[in-house]
Amino acid sequence: MRASVLSDWLAQRLDRGSGQPVYRQLHRLLQQAILSRELPAGARVPSSRLLAAELGIARNTVTQVYEQLVLEGYVASATGRGTYVADTSPDEIVGANEAGAMGVDRGAGARVGRPGTGGVLPASLPTGAAASPSPGIAASFAAQPAEGGGTHAAREAARALSARGARLIAGAGVSKRQGGAFMPGVPDVSRFPSRVWTRLTNKYWRSLRPDLLTYAPGGGLALLRHELADYLRTARSVRCSPEQIIITTGIHQSVDLAVRLLTDSGDVIWTEDPCYWGLRSVLHVSGLNPRPIAVDSEGINPSAEDFAVPPRLILVTPSHQYPLGMVMSLARRRMLLEYARQHQCWIIEDDYDSEFRYGSRPLASLQGLDTAGQVIYVGSFGKTLFPGLRVGYLVAPEALAESFATASAELYREGQLLQQAVLAEFIAEGHFTSHIRKMRGLYGQRREALLEAAASRYGDALPAMGGDAGLHVVMQLPEGCDDRAVAEAALARNIVVRPLSGYYAERARAASGLLIGYACVPDEEIAPAFNTLGEAIDATLPLFA
Amino acid sequence: MRASVLSDWLAQRLDRGSGQPVYRQLHRLLQQAILSRELPAGARVPSSRLLAAELGIARNTVTQVYEQLVLEGYVASATGRGTYVADTSPDEIVGANEAGAMGVDRGAGARVGRPGTGGVLPASLPTGAAASPSPGIAASFAAQPAEGGGTHAAREAARALSARGARLIAGAGVSKRQGGAFMPGVPDVSRFPSRVWTRLTNKYWRSLRPDLLTYAPGGGLALLRHELADYLRTARSVRCSPEQIIITTGIHQSVDLAVRLLTDSGDVIWTEDPCYWGLRSVLHVSGLNPRPIAVDSEGINPSAEDFAVPPRLILVTPSHQYPLGMVMSLARRRMLLEYARQHQCWIIEDDYDSEFRYGSRPLASLQGLDTAGQVIYVGSFGKTLFPGLRVGYLVAPEALAESFATASAELYREGQLLQQAVLAEFIAEGHFTSHIRKMRGLYGQRREALLEAAASRYGDALPAMGGDAGLHVVMQLPEGCDDRAVAEAALARNIVVRPLSGYYAERARAASGLLIGYACVPDEEIAPAFNTLGEAIDATLPLFA
Repeated sequence: MRASVLSDWLAQRLDRGSGQPVYRQLHRLLQQAILSRELPAGARVPSSRLLAAELGIARNTVTQVYEQLVLEGYVASATGRGTYVADTSPDEIVGANEAGAMGVDRGAGARVGRPGTGGVLPASLPTGAAASPSPGIAASFAAQPAEGGGTHAAREAARALSARGARLIAGAGVSKRQGGAFMPGVPDVSRFPSRVWTRLTNKYWRSLRPDLLTYAPGGGLALLRHELADYLRTARSVRCSPEQIIITTGIHQSVDLAVRLLTDSGDVIWTEDPCYWGLRSVLHVSGLNPRPIAVDSEGINPSAEDFAVPPRLILVTPSHQYPLGMVMSLARRRMLLEYARQHQCWIIEDDYDSEFRYGSRPLASLQGLDTAGQVIYVGSFGKTLFPGLRVGYLVAPEALAESFATASAELYREGQLLQQAVLAEFIAEGHFTSHIRKMRGLYGQRREALLEAAASRYGDALPAMGGDAGLHVVMQLPEGCDDRAVAEAALARNIVVRPLSGYYAERARAASGLLIGYACVPDEEIAPAFNTLGEAIDATLPLFA
Repeated sequence: MRASVLSDWLAQRLDRGSGQPVYRQLHRLLQQAILSRELPAGARVPSSRLLAAELGIARNTVTQVYEQLVLEGYVASATGRGTYVADTSPDEIVGANEAGAMGVDRGAGARVGRPGTGGVLPASLPTGAAASPSPGIAASFAAQPAEGGGTHAAREAARALSARGARLIAGAGVSKRQGGAFMPGVPDVSRFPSRVWTRLTNKYWRSLRPDLLTYAPGGGLALLRHELADYLRTARSVRCSPEQIIITTGIHQSVDLAVRLLTDSGDVIWTEDPCYWGLRSVLHVSGLNPRPIAVDSEGINPSAEDFAVPPRLILVTPSHQYPLGMVMSLARRRMLLEYARQHQCWIIEDDYDSEFRYGSRPLASLQGLDTAGQVIYVGSFGKTLFPGLRVGYLVAPEALAESFATASAELYREGQLLQQAVLAEFIAEGHFTSHIRKMRGLYGQRREALLEAAASRYGDALPAMGGDAGLHVVMQLPEGCDDRAVAEAALARNIVVRPLSGYYAERARAASGLLIGYACVPDEEIAPAFNTLGEAIDATLPLFA
């Protein structure tokens, strides 16, 4: 179109009332005119002075837009020939390399009037927009193709996910709710000593140490690794030097790191059955081949067939089996260590909540019994402080400590060193252990309240398991009861419980029960909330009505 | 041993001066005596009253230790028979299942005097400790086996890592240094507006909203996703709704998430050659099969052979090729989108530092041209704010937004919502864009200073590339120069530069050069630091001396 035609076309669409800067509007309009071939390749664009005059805008604005369009390859200026619309049709797919062979000094300008232009507009580009009467260019330009893309993408969605991706989504166990009665595994964050925490945080921000704001060295902040080594040695009988400690964002990342360093796709890994859904997902996407192993009152309990195929890795929760809550017996621990030593297996000890043991001190870790450097110990501050903190730790075998540190920096590029410094001082000043003591007392009361409420309503009919530690109990339901239905009925009454059967990999083994978290429920709400849950149970399981 | 003998043995080793609580010492000593069979299975332990008297400690302490040992399965008490040392020898490995079959009501006590005990001490258990004269039990108990474990583990270390793990470590590109002249890719964190940030942080901590301290909902905090959608729409021409935005911990996690959802092990992925080492590592550990594609002045430039094998995924840096710095031409962008549409490939657009473009506005994103919902856009606040923040984002195709949100919650169990709320308000109040403007000016000066220093020392002999955007320039070295040697010589002078050749997957293609980061170097230090670098260059490349 002639210059004046272009000016009219633009004038119609420039919307000074839209709040959109004229610069951005003009830029998008010209892009759109070129992409939609309103302005065909090779066409001369009016001089900035002329266009500015016809549109009644600052010439400087037009010049800037032209410069930007040159940079983006929409237009090109050749000395003595003014500014032309560049050929922006896609490179020939097959010929792309020979085009590239034209070398480094070739600019967009070289493309003006290049042969083989007149091809039709590729289907993948916006067309309607130019014809649209809508004055709000930005809107129409953004919206229309997006919708088109949406529906198109929708058609593809089915085949879009990979096999592992589809499996991950299908098996996802994550809940939409993250708190309230009776969300398992969520501590009471409202009691967190936030004053102390903010005091320390502000202190470190005032110092503004650049080294605390950049990437973390492999393994995390030395100060925190030292504090943790001391804590784990005394509180958990873990044998380690600070160099063996790797700071992570939590147990998920700790296990991911160990799996990527120690296993290959297709390797067999023993998992307890039942176990935590989150880690099962992490193992699946890493291409591992989990073998679910039964548990009994002493913990993981491999059969002769299980023993026959030594795994590469064994993932266990010795201090407090998740979710059932039993403690792995010493004999079972030693059996596991011996078997792992004989068959060169790795053991990951997931020690997710052993700080909360009621009526007795926490039990010693499995890692503390390991003399062959075959146990990787993982833990987290998610339950002891608050989940959103995202700080966990891994204790690597001495011989692999450096590899673990390197791999964590290489794969995750972690940071958050200021927060790690705050946490280290929080521990050093004794706030960590005193907070644990305080919360242990609090959770102990809530546990009592829950067990009483359960007993007073159901007597021995629905026994609770695993109540001597952790943040939840498992209430057993009579065999054959549909615990999923109960959980749904409870959710309809705004009570979150998790069906036990969902934690089993082997349906045949799946016991019926409910995971009931009491830690994040205020004392006075526990009895009433349990009665609401009771209604859901009675409504679903007539035998109790 | 008889009770009095045990008392003597314990008395010798109890160290009241050690600061270790007597409870913990006695607990460890008895564990050790049992594990080392000083106290054999079945042996009767003295009554708490007697032992307390003989050791001159509180009876209550002894009782508590006994209770703990019962819990841990070291001793067992049978009514009327006092307290006995339990059989703690490992379960028979083959028979473990039939032992387990004894069922749920079987306690540790059942094991006292169980047949088949007298086996020799498994090699995996501490022996020396008991004989050790050292009074500091805790020390000797912890140290000795750990050393043993260390050397044992050392023997295994070679075969310990998996194939992918070993490859990851061997190819790790992460640097020990994270700042100083001329660390590439690290912004100047000292200019971060920490006052504003702490003000907002304190505000949210005071409100102590539990929902900000627990796990994140899939995708992250809605408030931040809204702010980001607005920012990306206007600043980067990205077309998205807030629901399409997934908050991550950075580009590593964003790519990891996309790869796990959209690819399977063994899938072919196109990467630019050269490219960022960190993402190459992420792709490798996910089992992908990267095909390095050459780049020219217009960006990624696949050959006919490349086109012949459509990949599952294409990873590109269109706004600012990393590390060379060129901009992908519009024709190349359209070719890529068209090819991806025809062959059902996914494209990941890594837009890691496009905010910093000097002398022109940032270029529009590739995602903005995509109408088929096939581009996954990833970016991060690591360069615009500070790396340690660990906040990045991914823009998912509309049709997959929910799957991406679910997968991120399932795989990473993210949190940090309080920080996300602070960031959202930081953006809403305009601090984000004004900080970018401020830093763009600052980095522009430093870039000038660096280019001047280079020109004044080497003229055109060592041309710089990619200087019009980003946080580093690439100084080309004459072909055949060993850029690694130069980098080492520089490091010996405490100057960090990255050898360009290390970023290439195909040795044949590898050009010689240096990545020189200027962003985190104070203006006045740039010239002197470059001269130090020059000494390293001249010392390594005689031709410049």
